[in-house]
Amino acid sequence: MARVAGRRIHVIGIGAGDPEYITVQAIEALNDADVFFVPEKGEAKSDLVAVRRRICQRFIREPGYRFVELPDPPRSAGGEYRRAVSDWHVARARIWASAIATELDCGAVGAFLAWGDPSLYDSTLRILDAVAADIDLSYDVIPGITAVQALTARHRIPLTEVGEPVLITTGRQLRVNGLSGSAVVMLDAECSFRVCPADTRIWWGAYLGTDDELLVSGRVGEVGERIASLRADARARHGWIMDTYLLRSAD
Amino acid sequence: MARVAGRRIHVIGIGAGDPEYITVQAIEALNDADVFFVPEKGEAKSDLVAVRRRICQRFIREPGYRFVELPDPPRSAGGEYRRAVSDWHVARARIWASAIATELDCGAVGAFLAWGDPSLYDSTLRILDAVAADIDLSYDVIPGITAVQALTARHRIPLTEVGEPVLITTGRQLRVNGLSGSAVVMLDAECSFRVCPADTRIWWGAYLGTDDELLVSGRVGEVGERIASLRADARARHGWIMDTYLLRSAD
Ligand SMILES: C[S@@+](CC[C@H](N)C(=O)[O-])C[C@H]1O[C@@H](n2cnc3c(N)ncnc32)[C@H](O)[C@@H]1O
Ligand SMILES: C[S@@+](CC[C@H](N)C(=O)[O-])C[C@H]1O[C@@H](n2cnc3c(N)ncnc32)[C@H](O)[C@@H]1O
Repeated sequence: MARVAGRRIHVIGIGAGDPEYITVQAIEALNDADVFFVPEKGEAKSDLVAVRRRICQRFIREPGYRFVELPDPPRSAGGEYRRAVSDWHVARARIWASAIATELDCGAVGAFLAWGDPSLYDSTLRILDAVAADIDLSYDVIPGITAVQALTARHRIPLTEVGEPVLITTGRQLRVNGLSGSAVVMLDAECSFRVCPADTRIWWGAYLGTDDELLVSGRVGEVGERIASLRADARARHGWIMDTYLLRSAD
Repeated sequence: MARVAGRRIHVIGIGAGDPEYITVQAIEALNDADVFFVPEKGEAKSDLVAVRRRICQRFIREPGYRFVELPDPPRSAGGEYRRAVSDWHVARARIWASAIATELDCGAVGAFLAWGDPSLYDSTLRILDAVAADIDLSYDVIPGITAVQALTARHRIPLTEVGEPVLITTGRQLRVNGLSGSAVVMLDAECSFRVCPADTRIWWGAYLGTDDELLVSGRVGEVGERIASLRADARARHGWIMDTYLLRSAD
């Protein structure tokens, strides 16, 4: 009896900006895939979709792969945030499962490209987990360079002080809990560093690893307003922004 | 008047285990370097030195580069920990500065290979900063895949829960402060997860990304002792161990 190979999927971290952040392992996985599933973001982030296509064009040796776009279910407005996210994951899982079942023959290999690293503030793995409960598939995960690494590399600074911890967190959490020690803040649309004491040190970066990269560092009290206005201008010019920063409490 | 180009140095993250974690950007930097400076670790980590040499052999297209070993100053035993580390950094900076001045002609390119990412619990950047105060050099930083990314990729799990923070910390810190929420623990020679409540979830990995990789996950109360004995056996067999784990408080 012939063994029917199940569907395989690679979840590939593509790095957070510079296409050259791609790893050799990720390049192998790109070349192994027949179908690339691209969840639509519903936002004006077509630049990011373009980066993904450029990465495929540059690093895949043989053409013949194809892209399948996955429409995004509407996120229910209002209600409790985590509940809304979880409903939306369920709706996405349903769409992904039927696309995978239709577009990926048994034995074929699919791929999802995750910005940065697939484990960091990304829902691909959570949704695929739900998909795998419904249809026969297996997946592996290829790590990628995160925005955290891009930030510290471009500022040429350590993330951690000797023997000290660092928190990776969101703008919302920073506003609620304040800062203690060192923290990297992601997903912050509101320049939440302004809740920190003026002598807090900040290393800020936007569009890291790209031609549009912006870097500012100093004390929050000295550079905070400059960052806020740079950020607003850049966001208006591009239509979107990705930024992150490391904070350290003054000793 | 001819412009005298200063010495340039790349600090290159080589990923935390699998040689294929190397990025395209890191490969370019490897190929740009004439001299690789290798700080001796004084420990029986010759396996890790071997990985570095293998990476150079595999990814550098033209031979002609050379290795310069940097002896390690003795760490003063006893006294305050951070003070001892900082004295040791000063002593290293002195040794590195004279090696760089001697071995690297102006205009030549040097490189330091950092395990994983250069920003994470690594002192290369701190020491180079001190070196740059003494001699004319400039350096850039090439990010690499950290043990944190390797851990989550190999377990195929998210690092962060939706909108929640994660702490990156050490075994010592965990023992002192306990766990709240999610934390990745590094630099832990003592299986410090045993301070956590029995229902804490753990994803543990050793020698991640290598042929000797070990993975265990479950509740601390169920798998904790198994991890401790696996770890002791592996450490005895190899002569050294690198391990890390993600903890999540039970909801
Ligand atoms: C949904 S999260 C995804 C993070 C990604 N998985 C990673 O590994 O970096 C998006 C957030 O990452 C940060 N980010 C991602 N890429 C960035 C870049 N190139 N420059 C600055 N921030 C970036 C921003 O804080 C943004 O809000
Ligand atoms: C001095 S720190 C360097 C970390 C490195 N710069 C990085 O980015 O992962 C060494 C610690 O990293 C973790 N580590 C590094 N490589 C590892 C691997 N392949 N498997 C498990 N843990 C690893 C262990 O916790 C170890 O104690």
